[in-house]
Amino acid sequence: MGIILKQERLYKTYMTDKSNHSSLARYLDGEFWEIKDNLREEISKGEVFRKSSYGLPLDQNRDLTVERLEYILTRPLMRRHLQDQVKEKQAGFIAKSMDITEVICSADMATGVKFGVVCGLYGGAVTNLGSPEQTETWYLPVTALESTGMFAMTEKSHGSNVRGILTEARYEPSTQEFIIHTPCDDAQKMYIGNAMKGNYASVFAQLIINGESHGPHCFIVPIRDHSGVMTPGVTAIDMQHKEGLHGVDNGIVIFDNVRIPRKNLLSKFGCVSTDGLYSSPIQCKGKRFNAMLAALTPTRLGLSVQAMASMKLGLLIAVRYSHSRRQFGPKDQKEVKIIEHQTQYLRLMPHLAAALALTFTTSKGMAVLYQDVFSVVWFAGGMMDNALCKGEVLQDNSSLQALVAGLKAYSTWENLACLQECRECTGAMGFMMENRIPGLKCDSDAFVTFEGDNVVMLQVVVKELMTQYTRQLGNSVDGGLIQTWASSVSDSFRTSFLGFNVDTVGDLGFLLKALSYRERVLQRSLAARLYAKVEKNKEEFFHAWNSCLHHVTGLALAHIHRVTLEQFALAVQKCPVEEDHTLLTKFCLLHGTSLVYQERAWYLEHHYLTPTTSRQIRTQWLELCRSVKDVALKVVSDFNVPSCCIQAPIAGVANPRAEWAFHSLPEYPFTVSKL
Amino acid sequence: MGIILKQERLYKTYMTDKSNHSSLARYLDGEFWEIKDNLREEISKGEVFRKSSYGLPLDQNRDLTVERLEYILTRPLMRRHLQDQVKEKQAGFIAKSMDITEVICSADMATGVKFGVVCGLYGGAVTNLGSPEQTETWYLPVTALESTGMFAMTEKSHGSNVRGILTEARYEPSTQEFIIHTPCDDAQKMYIGNAMKGNYASVFAQLIINGESHGPHCFIVPIRDHSGVMTPGVTAIDMQHKEGLHGVDNGIVIFDNVRIPRKNLLSKFGCVSTDGLYSSPIQCKGKRFNAMLAALTPTRLGLSVQAMASMKLGLLIAVRYSHSRRQFGPKDQKEVKIIEHQTQYLRLMPHLAAALALTFTTSKGMAVLYQDVFSVVWFAGGMMDNALCKGEVLQDNSSLQALVAGLKAYSTWENLACLQECRECTGAMGFMMENRIPGLKCDSDAFVTFEGDNVVMLQVVVKELMTQYTRQLGNSVDGGLIQTWASSVSDSFRTSFLGFNVDTVGDLGFLLKALSYRERVLQRSLAARLYAKVEKNKEEFFHAWNSCLHHVTGLALAHIHRVTLEQFALAVQKCPVEEDHTLLTKFCLLHGTSLVYQERAWYLEHHYLTPTTSRQIRTQWLELCRSVKDVALKVVSDFNVPSCCIQAPIAGVANPRAEWAFHSLPEYPFTVSKL
Repeated sequence: MGIILKQERLYKTYMTDKSNHSSLARYLDGEFWEIKDNLREEISKGEVFRKSSYGLPLDQNRDLTVERLEYILTRPLMRRHLQDQVKEKQAGFIAKSMDITEVICSADMATGVKFGVVCGLYGGAVTNLGSPEQTETWYLPVTALESTGMFAMTEKSHGSNVRGILTEARYEPSTQEFIIHTPCDDAQKMYIGNAMKGNYASVFAQLIINGESHGPHCFIVPIRDHSGVMTPGVTAIDMQHKEGLHGVDNGIVIFDNVRIPRKNLLSKFGCVSTDGLYSSPIQCKGKRFNAMLAALTPTRLGLSVQAMASMKLGLLIAVRYSHSRRQFGPKDQKEVKIIEHQTQYLRLMPHLAAALALTFTTSKGMAVLYQDVFSVVWFAGGMMDNALCKGEVLQDNSSLQALVAGLKAYSTWENLACLQECRECTGAMGFMMENRIPGLKCDSDAFVTFEGDNVVMLQVVVKELMTQYTRQLGNSVDGGLIQTWASSVSDSFRTSFLGFNVDTVGDLGFLLKALSYRERVLQRSLAARLYAKVEKNKEEFFHAWNSCLHHVTGLALAHIHRVTLEQFALAVQKCPVEEDHTLLTKFCLLHGTSLVYQERAWYLEHHYLTPTTSRQIRTQWLELCRSVKDVALKVVSDFNVPSCCIQAPIAGVANPRAEWAFHSLPEYPFTVSKL
Repeated sequence: MGIILKQERLYKTYMTDKSNHSSLARYLDGEFWEIKDNLREEISKGEVFRKSSYGLPLDQNRDLTVERLEYILTRPLMRRHLQDQVKEKQAGFIAKSMDITEVICSADMATGVKFGVVCGLYGGAVTNLGSPEQTETWYLPVTALESTGMFAMTEKSHGSNVRGILTEARYEPSTQEFIIHTPCDDAQKMYIGNAMKGNYASVFAQLIINGESHGPHCFIVPIRDHSGVMTPGVTAIDMQHKEGLHGVDNGIVIFDNVRIPRKNLLSKFGCVSTDGLYSSPIQCKGKRFNAMLAALTPTRLGLSVQAMASMKLGLLIAVRYSHSRRQFGPKDQKEVKIIEHQTQYLRLMPHLAAALALTFTTSKGMAVLYQDVFSVVWFAGGMMDNALCKGEVLQDNSSLQALVAGLKAYSTWENLACLQECRECTGAMGFMMENRIPGLKCDSDAFVTFEGDNVVMLQVVVKELMTQYTRQLGNSVDGGLIQTWASSVSDSFRTSFLGFNVDTVGDLGFLLKALSYRERVLQRSLAARLYAKVEKNKEEFFHAWNSCLHHVTGLALAHIHRVTLEQFALAVQKCPVEEDHTLLTKFCLLHGTSLVYQERAWYLEHHYLTPTTSRQIRTQWLELCRSVKDVALKVVSDFNVPSCCIQAPIAGVANPRAEWAFHSLPEYPFTVSKL
């Protein structure tokens, strides 16, 4: 009787539009669950989020996105949050921003991206690269919706290799102005979000004084006034139709000797005196540019959060439909729910486990950004030199930057793979726009190449891993390499401190150790290869590195895989409610098993798995997927996505535009006590 | 000097809109290259193909598709072809249809799909399931553009499990009419292409006479007259917005006791006399329905051709851009072409090899359909019983059906994976609609679940493989299983007749043998598992089968992989020009190496590869990808896609709607003699 009541309570939480306050839902939402709930409620109340945006002409779609963003930015909680950004940032600011991003993206990805452009990129550039006065001047009006901004870094010929941007900012002492100029077609600022609506742009350009370049710096350039009249010399071209994110107006921005006052150079990492003397707290050009990019690290973490939001939503829709749609079955009997087909749960459950892993990993990432730098040491793994990290500010923390870059690559790819399975697992219904999955796919396909192409991101990870490795070895690279290489087999790994049993493949300890082992071996062998190529054979570094790229990307992903499993395992350990702990443990095991299973060839090659244990891993993977298929319905409910964000008729949310697609909500196929 | 002239000639062929008549281009186009060239020329001349369709409102997009299809169907070559379809089909009819499909799909996927619906599905139903008189009555007017048709099989509750359709066709002897009726919401005909424009539908419904069901049959039901007035009792609901194929009007069709004359039952596999007596050449209901579905096999092969057309186009665009776009490079030197990045060619080249494999496999598939049934024995592999095939008509050839089903699954998935890499390898430009890849992705995403969900398709393959296996063993299943299982290791495989060297992993013979080995082992072990579950443990068949689904899908893909490599190898053997032979050999090796490489865990588990040979396979894969990256530019040119079909500015085709995206054509990075 008690069980039935409890089940009913659980059931109700996902029937209504009220937030789900089950213990697991609360645990998944994390520290700032109240902010998330508050924003969910605001979005549920907002008329602008009632209508779905698919099928609208481009202009209407963009206008709707502007309306939605304005609605969001004027909510009381958002007003407070933006004031925090303008003033001294407080502990938890990044984490709150990420939580807000997740909720907005669940409602509409284009609105989330536009929020990211205006507040994350433009706002982040001004607040992180500018002085408090500059923030007051250039960002405060944006938070008050008096004007809006864009972020102009990428150029036609330099997308990934952003260090090579060509836009010029020549200083003219006589007028105390910078002259912003696009010297050639290749220097055109491209794909700029909010280009057709924004008033100000944070423009990255080569700072040139007396013909000498001081490397890329960021300048505020007025683009158009509030009635839409363009600044003389500025041209904006609408890039129009994309695969997705139709609500975001991307465009090309071209500068023809546009004059801006000296004070428009964001001055934290470099400034120019009235008579043209340059000064900067960072002398090395390369380091200076890195520091500027580092200030944008939170925005990049935001992409992982967007990918995670998209995965959660896609999985919620696919899992619910899989539990209500029936097809095929035993002869002369009722057809079975499609979740019962082995292939169906094998396709969905590993992604659900990955979505949970990403939830905990991004949440840890948020926690350490700005406010808890010490724990970065733990976060980035055991290979880091402790002393290097303590007390350092974010912009020098290349290890954290690398981790965020790697997480961005892993999460955005994982999201696409997940959504593709969700789309296929929902059959033709998954191809219909009203069911949201196609839109999510098209929107978030952008993430794998934007704000850093994923393959480039993986190289950022490995450059950092190689730097750490060299540091560890001190100066004796040669001997060190050989020595550590030889000792790799007998190495005892730090993950063992987690105290899991490592006797059998079914133990989390075994899985953690396996991932850690793979990362280390790949790291050492890469170091050895690069050393041989560059130091011994005197190959040009670029070519040596390029010939190892397959190895490099493998290592980077191995690193991120290990981090996600460790974070998941830690979150399981800390989970206070036993029922949730039991449930999460299964998913954590599944995540680790999937990661080892997909790389089992490597483990077999390295005799880490025998053919027998490799088969055991497969059996375990099959069994874990099966064992969580029913409870998956509770987990997706605990993602706490309000109906107005789900929208999909196949997930039980009626849509007057597509009545035919409605499928009623599935019932829980289990009793709570079985959790 | 001679080399330069030859290079210039080659270069010119892809600069102009004229068809490319290099020997390789001709070889890839196959027997009916003249028809393809003729159609390419017609499309290049057609005003309706000059404008690109992205960004159009749904109605305009659909109207444009109708215009395009009408333009195609009224070309002289198409008039002749459709006349062939109405009359007795001649040798090569299927192959020509497939070639035509490929060219239309290169120009516009929605037009290709609409062509498939009207001429392939509706036309195929009438001509294959109806009498000559019925063809005259119901299809001739469609070929003359006097009316148009749709194909109504799928229902709301029965998409994949189409045998369970619920629509009823009750015979009323007093009026000599069938009453077509949708008894419940679940019976609504769904996703029907051309539903908002078509005049006639070929409707699959349960034939009921005196309350007795004779299983699904196909009926011609008038839907609307030429001025658009609906037939009384027929309702069509527009399903509107999809992920892609915006030019195709999919809808729901509902019948409320619609009366049609007795002669509207397509009568080849069953007919009803005036007084309600049913007769059929096939007594068993299940077999009868299979025979009806089999008549549609060519349409399913058409999906593989559509997927292949899409791959070719995507690769052409991505490879050209990769050879002109530059990013990163050695310090203080010019940035390198992005094709030089190891990851870039590793991501694209295996798909290019697969596209070639599919070209030859589908072309072989076309050749055997209808006109060369004997060779089916070869085509479907060595496991078939020769005697079973000879002289049998298509509808009984379940082996060929299974192969076409498997090829559909493999090619449509391979296409999606390929396009995703193409999109990512072209960076943000690959996200822009003018560059075609996003549109191709969204359009062809439909293929993985339509006309047979891919996972269901794979099960069709394996059901046939299991049937063959049981036949091979005769009735002594038990002893047979054990015997053949034991002999598997020492088996000598038929692929060895190809005469390739099998000494090292670098030989095609080794790769062919490896794929064949894997297929056989998976087949035998599945048979053993099913036998144990069903025969020994008396498990219900559905559940036993379901618990092996992961194994089943693995076996099906292993089967298709083997077939594609064999077909590729045969095409290489037959290639008459030495230069082309050399080039194709490399790609064939790459295709085989990729297939073994991706399953190397399995080979390691089964001791077929040692850790050392497994690493060798990887090294070989890396090296083969590198070795073909330059010549890839010639191969994509030899795909012979006219500029008006390419459209993409990043592939060197200017688009006035997106001038900014233009990248001039890359130059060949090699001299012809190096081919």
